[in-house]
Amino acid sequence: MKIRVGIAGYGNLGRGVESAIAQNEDMELVGVFTRRNPEDVHLLSANVSTYKMDDITNYTDKIDVLILCGGSKNDLPEQGPVLAALFNTVDSFDTHAKIPDYFEAVDTSAKPNGKTAIISVGWDPGLFSINRLFGEAILPEGATYTFWGKGLSQGHSDAVRRIDGVKGAVQYTIPVSDAVNRVRSGEAPKLSTREKHTRECYVVLKDGADAKAVEIAIVTMPDYFSDYDTTVNFISQEQLDTDHAAMPHGGFVIRSGKTGEGNSQVMEYSLKLDSNPEFTSSVLVAYARAAYRLSQNGETGAKTVFDIAPGMLSPKSAADLRKELL
Amino acid sequence: MKIRVGIAGYGNLGRGVESAIAQNEDMELVGVFTRRNPEDVHLLSANVSTYKMDDITNYTDKIDVLILCGGSKNDLPEQGPVLAALFNTVDSFDTHAKIPDYFEAVDTSAKPNGKTAIISVGWDPGLFSINRLFGEAILPEGATYTFWGKGLSQGHSDAVRRIDGVKGAVQYTIPVSDAVNRVRSGEAPKLSTREKHTRECYVVLKDGADAKAVEIAIVTMPDYFSDYDTTVNFISQEQLDTDHAAMPHGGFVIRSGKTGEGNSQVMEYSLKLDSNPEFTSSVLVAYARAAYRLSQNGETGAKTVFDIAPGMLSPKSAADLRKELL
Repeated sequence: MKIRVGIAGYGNLGRGVESAIAQNEDMELVGVFTRRNPEDVHLLSANVSTYKMDDITNYTDKIDVLILCGGSKNDLPEQGPVLAALFNTVDSFDTHAKIPDYFEAVDTSAKPNGKTAIISVGWDPGLFSINRLFGEAILPEGATYTFWGKGLSQGHSDAVRRIDGVKGAVQYTIPVSDAVNRVRSGEAPKLSTREKHTRECYVVLKDGADAKAVEIAIVTMPDYFSDYDTTVNFISQEQLDTDHAAMPHGGFVIRSGKTGEGNSQVMEYSLKLDSNPEFTSSVLVAYARAAYRLSQNGETGAKTVFDIAPGMLSPKSAADLRKELL
Repeated sequence: MKIRVGIAGYGNLGRGVESAIAQNEDMELVGVFTRRNPEDVHLLSANVSTYKMDDITNYTDKIDVLILCGGSKNDLPEQGPVLAALFNTVDSFDTHAKIPDYFEAVDTSAKPNGKTAIISVGWDPGLFSINRLFGEAILPEGATYTFWGKGLSQGHSDAVRRIDGVKGAVQYTIPVSDAVNRVRSGEAPKLSTREKHTRECYVVLKDGADAKAVEIAIVTMPDYFSDYDTTVNFISQEQLDTDHAAMPHGGFVIRSGKTGEGNSQVMEYSLKLDSNPEFTSSVLVAYARAAYRLSQNGETGAKTVFDIAPGMLSPKSAADLRKELL
C-alpha cells in the first residue's frame, strides 16, 4: 500500500512536490488543494485532481500526509496549526526567528489530535541545520560557517521589487570565494557580514523612474543590503525574463575544529541546486515518508529534522540500509 | 550529573577518545581498560586510571557508556557482543561486508540485557553512510559517489608491510581530481575503480631486498592494488618516520540527481582530516551521548547511525537546538 500524500498550495513548491512524488514508488498523490478556483490550477499530471482548500476537511481519511506548500510569511503561520489538527503534515516554514513560536503552535494543535507534524523542512532550515548540529556536536572546539549561494534570494528580490520605480527585479546572494577558501583551509577566521557575501541585483525600472534614486534606495536598505557590498544592474524586462527566470541556489555549511594536540579537522556540506524549489520539494517528500512512519509508531506532535532518524527517510528496510549503505 | 564513560582498548582510537571526552563538559572519563599491563599504559591525563580488561565486570555500575576502541578485524567481533551484554556501548566496527552479522551478534547480546549498543560509528561507516542515505532518499533519480582521501589507509599499508622484503610502509589513497570534478558538475559519469582513485606507496626495504620484486608484488596484488594505478616510492626509515607519521584522511560523498524537467541537483559532503583516528574518536564520543540517552529512554539493542536522530548527539536541549541551530 502506497503512502497517500496531499498537497496544500500549488506554487513553485507544490509543483516541485508533485514532481518529486512521481519519483517515489512508495507514494501516490491523492490531490492538490488550492485557494484559487481549482479549475484554474493546471497540474503536471492529468491523473490528479484539484480541490478547494475549504473542502479539505472531507479528505482526512484519504490522506496519510499533507505537504503544506504555502509561504512562511502569510500562509503557514495560519494554515500550519489548523491543518496539523486534521492531518499528519510536513512544511517548510523558514522564518528562523519565529521557529520556536511556530513549533509551539503546531505542537499544541497536532498532539491532542494524535497527528505528527514535521516543521521547517528543506535545506535551510533543514539539511544545513543538521550539518550545523553535527559540526558542533562532533567538534566542540571550533567554529561553524554558513555561506549561501550563488543563488536567487526570494526575500531580497521581493524587497527590491517593493521600491518605488521598480517594475521587476531579482537578487543573487554570492559567497565571497576568498572567505570560503580561508574557512576551508581550517584557518577559522572571524568574518564580518560584508566579508562573507556580496549581493547582485538585476532591476527593471518603470517608465520615467530615477535609476540613481533606486540604486541608493537598494544599497542603503537596512537589514537587507546596507551591511553588504551590493551591485545594481539595470536591465530590460526581456533580459529579466530570459536570463533570470531560473531559481538556482545552494551554499555551504563548514565546521572547522581542532582535536587532540591541535589537529585541524574540517567538515563541509554543500549544495549546488539548479532549482531551489524543486530541491526543497524533494526534501519535503522524503520527510513526508518519515512523518507517515512516526505517525504509524504513535509518535505525535511537532517535530523538526533534529528529531528524525536518517533511516526514517528511506523507503528501504533497516536491514537493507545496513547492508547496502552503511 | 555527567555521563560516565569508559574506554576499552588504548591505541590511537582510545587516545583520541580520551582527548575528545575532555572537550565535552557533560562527560567524564571513568577509566581505561586494557589487555596490556595497566601500568605500562600511559594516558594523556594524570587523573584517570587504567585497569585490566579482565576486571571490567566490576565496573558495570560505574560506567554509563563504554566506548570500544579495538580493531574491527580481531578485537570487536569478539569483544562487541560480550561487552554489549554488560554495558551500553559504542564502537567503530568498519568491515562493511560483515556489518549485518556483527549487528545481529551485538543485538542478540544487548537486547535481553537491556543495553544499548551503537555499532559502526565513525565517518565511513558513519557520517558518509548518513550522507549516502540522505542522497538517495532525497534525490531518488541519481547516482551516489564516494571518494576517499587523500589519506593514509591502514588496511592497504598493512598489506604492503606483509610483503617479503618490506621493513616498513605507508599507503595513501588519492581521489582522481578529474573524476571528482566531473561528478561535482552534475555529469553523473560511469567511473571504473581505476578512474576514481590512485594509490601511492612509500616503502622501506629490508637489507638486501629486491626492489623490483617488491614493486611487482605490490602493484599486482589482487583486491588491494591490481585494479588501481599504483605508484611505489622507496624511502629510508628516517624519511618514513619524519614525513609519514601523521594520519590524515578524508573524502567526499556526492549525490548527483535530477528533479522536475531535468534540473541538476548536487549534494556533497566532504571531510578534510589532519588526524583520522582523532576525528573518528570525536564521532564516537558524540554517539556515546546518544547511546546514553537512548538507554535512558529504554531503547535497547543494537543501533546504527541510521537509527539515531541528530538531536541525540548534542548536549543542547531540543528547544535550544530549534532556537539556535535550525
